[in-house]
Amino acid sequence: MENLLLIIAGVAIVLAIAYAVFNYFCVKKLEEGTEKMGEIAGAIRIGANAFIKYEYKLVAIIGAVIAVVVFIVISWQAAIAFVIGAVLSASAGWVGMKIATYANVRVTNTARESKDVGKTLKVAFKGGSVMGLCVAGFALLGVVIVFLVFGLGLGQIDEIVKGEISKNFITGLESSFTMTLSGYALGCSIIAMFNRVGGGIYTKAADMGADLVGKTEAHIPEDDPRNPATIADNVGDNVGDVAGLGSDLLESYVGAMLSAVILAGEMFMHGMVLSEKLLSSLLLFPIVFAGCGLLACIIGISYIVLKPRLSKNVHMELNIATWIAAGVTVGVGCLISYFMFKDIPADILKTNEIGFKVGEFSPWLAAVCGIIAGIVIGVISEYYTSYDYKPTKGIAQSSKEGPALTVTQGLATGMISCMLPVVVLALAIFGSYQLAGMYGISCAALGMLSFVAATVSVDTYGPISDNAGGIAEMSELDPEVREITDKLDSVGNTTAAIGKGFAIGSAAFAALSLMTSYLFAFSDINLIEELILNIMNPLVLCGALCGAALPFFFSGLLIKAVAKAARKMVEEVRRQFREYPGILDGTQVPDYKTCIEISSQGALKEMRMPCIFCILFPIVTGFIFGPYFVGGVLIGATITAIMLALFCGNSGGAWDNAKKYIEAGGLKDVKEDLEKLKEDAEKAEALADAKAEENVGKGSPAHDAAVVGDTVGDPLKDTVGPSLDILIKIMSTISLVAVVVFSEWNLFNLIF
Amino acid sequence: MENLLLIIAGVAIVLAIAYAVFNYFCVKKLEEGTEKMGEIAGAIRIGANAFIKYEYKLVAIIGAVIAVVVFIVISWQAAIAFVIGAVLSASAGWVGMKIATYANVRVTNTARESKDVGKTLKVAFKGGSVMGLCVAGFALLGVVIVFLVFGLGLGQIDEIVKGEISKNFITGLESSFTMTLSGYALGCSIIAMFNRVGGGIYTKAADMGADLVGKTEAHIPEDDPRNPATIADNVGDNVGDVAGLGSDLLESYVGAMLSAVILAGEMFMHGMVLSEKLLSSLLLFPIVFAGCGLLACIIGISYIVLKPRLSKNVHMELNIATWIAAGVTVGVGCLISYFMFKDIPADILKTNEIGFKVGEFSPWLAAVCGIIAGIVIGVISEYYTSYDYKPTKGIAQSSKEGPALTVTQGLATGMISCMLPVVVLALAIFGSYQLAGMYGISCAALGMLSFVAATVSVDTYGPISDNAGGIAEMSELDPEVREITDKLDSVGNTTAAIGKGFAIGSAAFAALSLMTSYLFAFSDINLIEELILNIMNPLVLCGALCGAALPFFFSGLLIKAVAKAARKMVEEVRRQFREYPGILDGTQVPDYKTCIEISSQGALKEMRMPCIFCILFPIVTGFIFGPYFVGGVLIGATITAIMLALFCGNSGGAWDNAKKYIEAGGLKDVKEDLEKLKEDAEKAEALADAKAEENVGKGSPAHDAAVVGDTVGDPLKDTVGPSLDILIKIMSTISLVAVVVFSEWNLFNLIF
Repeated sequence: MENLLLIIAGVAIVLAIAYAVFNYFCVKKLEEGTEKMGEIAGAIRIGANAFIKYEYKLVAIIGAVIAVVVFIVISWQAAIAFVIGAVLSASAGWVGMKIATYANVRVTNTARESKDVGKTLKVAFKGGSVMGLCVAGFALLGVVIVFLVFGLGLGQIDEIVKGEISKNFITGLESSFTMTLSGYALGCSIIAMFNRVGGGIYTKAADMGADLVGKTEAHIPEDDPRNPATIADNVGDNVGDVAGLGSDLLESYVGAMLSAVILAGEMFMHGMVLSEKLLSSLLLFPIVFAGCGLLACIIGISYIVLKPRLSKNVHMELNIATWIAAGVTVGVGCLISYFMFKDIPADILKTNEIGFKVGEFSPWLAAVCGIIAGIVIGVISEYYTSYDYKPTKGIAQSSKEGPALTVTQGLATGMISCMLPVVVLALAIFGSYQLAGMYGISCAALGMLSFVAATVSVDTYGPISDNAGGIAEMSELDPEVREITDKLDSVGNTTAAIGKGFAIGSAAFAALSLMTSYLFAFSDINLIEELILNIMNPLVLCGALCGAALPFFFSGLLIKAVAKAARKMVEEVRRQFREYPGILDGTQVPDYKTCIEISSQGALKEMRMPCIFCILFPIVTGFIFGPYFVGGVLIGATITAIMLALFCGNSGGAWDNAKKYIEAGGLKDVKEDLEKLKEDAEKAEALADAKAEENVGKGSPAHDAAVVGDTVGDPLKDTVGPSLDILIKIMSTISLVAVVVFSEWNLFNLIF
Repeated sequence: MENLLLIIAGVAIVLAIAYAVFNYFCVKKLEEGTEKMGEIAGAIRIGANAFIKYEYKLVAIIGAVIAVVVFIVISWQAAIAFVIGAVLSASAGWVGMKIATYANVRVTNTARESKDVGKTLKVAFKGGSVMGLCVAGFALLGVVIVFLVFGLGLGQIDEIVKGEISKNFITGLESSFTMTLSGYALGCSIIAMFNRVGGGIYTKAADMGADLVGKTEAHIPEDDPRNPATIADNVGDNVGDVAGLGSDLLESYVGAMLSAVILAGEMFMHGMVLSEKLLSSLLLFPIVFAGCGLLACIIGISYIVLKPRLSKNVHMELNIATWIAAGVTVGVGCLISYFMFKDIPADILKTNEIGFKVGEFSPWLAAVCGIIAGIVIGVISEYYTSYDYKPTKGIAQSSKEGPALTVTQGLATGMISCMLPVVVLALAIFGSYQLAGMYGISCAALGMLSFVAATVSVDTYGPISDNAGGIAEMSELDPEVREITDKLDSVGNTTAAIGKGFAIGSAAFAALSLMTSYLFAFSDINLIEELILNIMNPLVLCGALCGAALPFFFSGLLIKAVAKAARKMVEEVRRQFREYPGILDGTQVPDYKTCIEISSQGALKEMRMPCIFCILFPIVTGFIFGPYFVGGVLIGATITAIMLALFCGNSGGAWDNAKKYIEAGGLKDVKEDLEKLKEDAEKAEALADAKAEENVGKGSPAHDAAVVGDTVGDPLKDTVGPSLDILIKIMSTISLVAVVVFSEWNLFNLIF
């Protein structure tokens, strides 16, 4: 039976990767369209490739250093696992970005030729699905290899599957298991960190730079080919929103799986797992569950790929695909949980140490807890950021009083929006803990990410459509084409809200579960009640305070980095407009390449400091103040990073949509009121007033104010927010890798 | 000896209050100046009085409800102590504001008549000193009464002084001591909360409203009598910066003293204080130390009041006064610490349970730790907010690219600025803990606030000078008068930075020490090592998450409240300008009263929700989830509130000063560079560019952008930041009062 279950995971990996290859070539063999379109797409592709190449060179050096250190200080298995993680994560990002830069122009061309939303959607989604399938397939492949080959040694596969565990197996578990698996997670994290941070700086520097001069000074629309920064902006979408997002979610997915697996191993070693059969199930459940989730996603993705005629309701079609994936995962997950834990005696299952309160269904229910929490958090984000609701409308209304109130209202909305999601998170933590102890918390993270292939496909389809629109605009195609791509793009933005909920939620759950393993790794306990991180211990408290400041510091550095790179971009765009006046008339072609280089250089230069700081902080302080201080750092950083991620994501989203609300004429109702007032009005003042308020759409002062808000919010929501999710996981992982060393050797121990 | 020491405190109280009365009448008997000046000052006074009256009515109702609840649920002693605290705190705010509204016009008049900075400074400082002396005098008086009369009962005074403690005494300690003392602290906290929040909303609504229309639309300078909101703005200074600040610092001072006293009592009851003599010293040290600090402040204040001719270097004179107060406090504090603890055997003093690592000097050294930390945090704030340094200059430079980058840079600076102060705080916590255990942490808070009379005097002198400038402007006096008051005002802003460091630092220390007492109050432990708040306990963890969101939620509500009230003000000012066009020509007098009412009503309405929410949150969740959850809430809230307070204070300050930097011509160096460029330039573009950059002072686009930043920052630094300091203390205090009840009776206990 267990053998069969494990085979499911293998089948899922093979199918997913094959499917990705198939879709890749399906998309690539389509026509590019006109020569101009090909040219522009080529420029985007070259820019994106160049950046990723530079970035990967930098990351390779840092990665090599880390690998050597891990090899010397920890073990060769951990070093190999680290390299595997880094290579797989980097490859997923690379492949996904590659196909995105092929797909974008083909989406434009499909829209141009077919004028059909459904057909265009199919191309865009196929492109996105390559990334989705690669992320999940590669991640799972790596987990299986590392887990079976390096974590335990090949000989033990049979043992673990049968649940008959030998001395040899236990030796393997004790000597290298945790370190090797966290080495793998670390490899994925490092790539995710650099891709997210680098991509985030790149894309927002280009975006802000293009907007600050283009929209505000030269008053030309977005994606106008006359703007020299416009190609860089489109490259940024591929670099940040495709490659960055892909390796980010790969890392979350791996983190969720491995945090559960590592925890199971640690609990067994501390005598808290009272049967070998149970250990085997606890170790395999996350992998099998993820495998089934991947199969479910293949079904969901096939719905869109294979359905002969997609309807025009893009939102519905995408939702159906996602819900199929999620629904099948939840349904099959229930069966898996049942089959994997049903043979274990109830008294062992329900003992306090594991705490499966509702027997064999506990891990499954915990996963469901996670899924529900993720959806609810997404819905709450939606409430605070969509212009259908009061908060964002309020920001739009405030824009009438100028940019200061736009910003102020946005900050307030972002701050207020932290409360409810956190309450939901707390409920989910409490619920999943009650269901299955700390293991339940990692199951909740796993639940959120089990159908990651589907969500990444949808998330990647968004920037592909965005790019397609850009290409349509720059190639000066029929506006109808742009309308189709805009429709696809806007749907992408809505579905992204739920994705954000999952990102934050799963990061929090995974970080907590990794922290538990961290505490296990240096404590000598054999009861779950003894797992203590006492915040009243001054060392822990000081750590928590410093840790709490870290996300603020990190965010500040990122914002500054974006602003710095954006200012350089602004100067360059201004220079080009000044030196080549023909650009604005359309008689001269702007120099796109220099802008791309500025974004590249800016991102590569500015990403180092924040990333390296956050990698080194827990290690250096660990060697100085010891493991309790670092424990405090982890909890402090996790708590404030969650708050800041919510704050940044929601305030940024709200500003963005407040601007869109004004563009869509949302403030016009005021205008109509005034229209009526005009008729009744006897006083000249009322008329004058009405006139002042009349211009409330695009280009009005209110819109200008909203643009300021949007520009402020952009780096918050697209650079800082997502990077914070990674920050907490990378810090937990790196501490987990290093703790065995610094818990023995630290300055504090030597002195006190 | 101990009797003598306690007498010092009594003498300090009597002297301080007498001195305050003397200065009050000294200032009041001065001339008001011209009729117009009297009129304006009268309007400000009436506005301020009316608001405080309304506010105190509201607070009286809420206070009465709390008093009754405390009486029923806790004890009559606690209820009386609560009322005493509330009345004393309210009175200090009232008296200080009263004299400030007399002093402002008299400062203007002194400047007008004498044209001498020194003489004007003396009047302003005398006015401020009334508040400083009242705050410290009233607070200490209340502490002595509550401590000796209601905390222990009158009969025990002699016992405690002699260190011979009877059964009776211990019974008193066990039955009502902690509750009564924290009841007193709660009374002070409630008033501080409402005064700070209400005053903060009032002042910033008026300020933002006046600026948004006046500066941005009508282009009239600040404090111009044509702006209808200008009187409301000046009323706001008195309400927020004088009364709000006064009761805020009174509360901090009380919190610092009582957290030490309560902790000493709790430690004794848990068997951790191994001698009665030691208990007596621990209980009395904070009071005696504070008494000496007050005497030292009287000396420092007298330096300015009595010195026949003050120099023109206002900054130096104020610094000398503060340093005298601080120096004498530190010096005498050393002696007190020595005399109070020298008779206690070293083995008792140095045992782990108390942990006086360096014997009788330990509490004093811990206090010094606090003072140093406060100063360093202040200096760091100064670095991030003063325009002499890079961060603020960077914001000013960014303003050239428009408001979006101003805001972005300010946010980044604020976020980055959180790191260093927190590291200093952590070091100080660790240091004071190493010196004298948890008692040391409360001593650190005490150290920061021991010379509060001097710092409040300086802090209050600022808004008095600010008001004086406003009156000079509105009465259309000689610009020379305004120059003098501006000079005084600008110095006030600089000295305020150090004050902020003390405010945040002491709040953090006091909250931590109160939290220790909170844990003592429901745990059954007799070793300090057993004092555990395990963050890995899911209940504590969920509490910490929810607690961490609270300061964000609270801040968001406050910002929203300010923005809402400010928008109403904007509408009113616009209406007046529209309906009475004569106002802008100076032929019609604007309707100041309506604006004052709008600010009043706005503040009164908007302050309720955030304040009541924060008071109820720990109590309600305590009754539902029990004391461990609330413990988590307290630690989570404390940690994020410190971060947010630093972020808000520093970003707001930096924006403010970036604007001032531009006004002072800070961007002109760029202009000079361009001047040179012009000579060399051959291209017309360079000239055009130079022209565009030429206008870099007041009224330039860069300045407009900086004004946006300042407007965004205003509510952050003046409403949110200071309110957060109170938030964490009020939550700790209220939890401490309620914990005995909800640790027995809570829903969670019933279910699980």
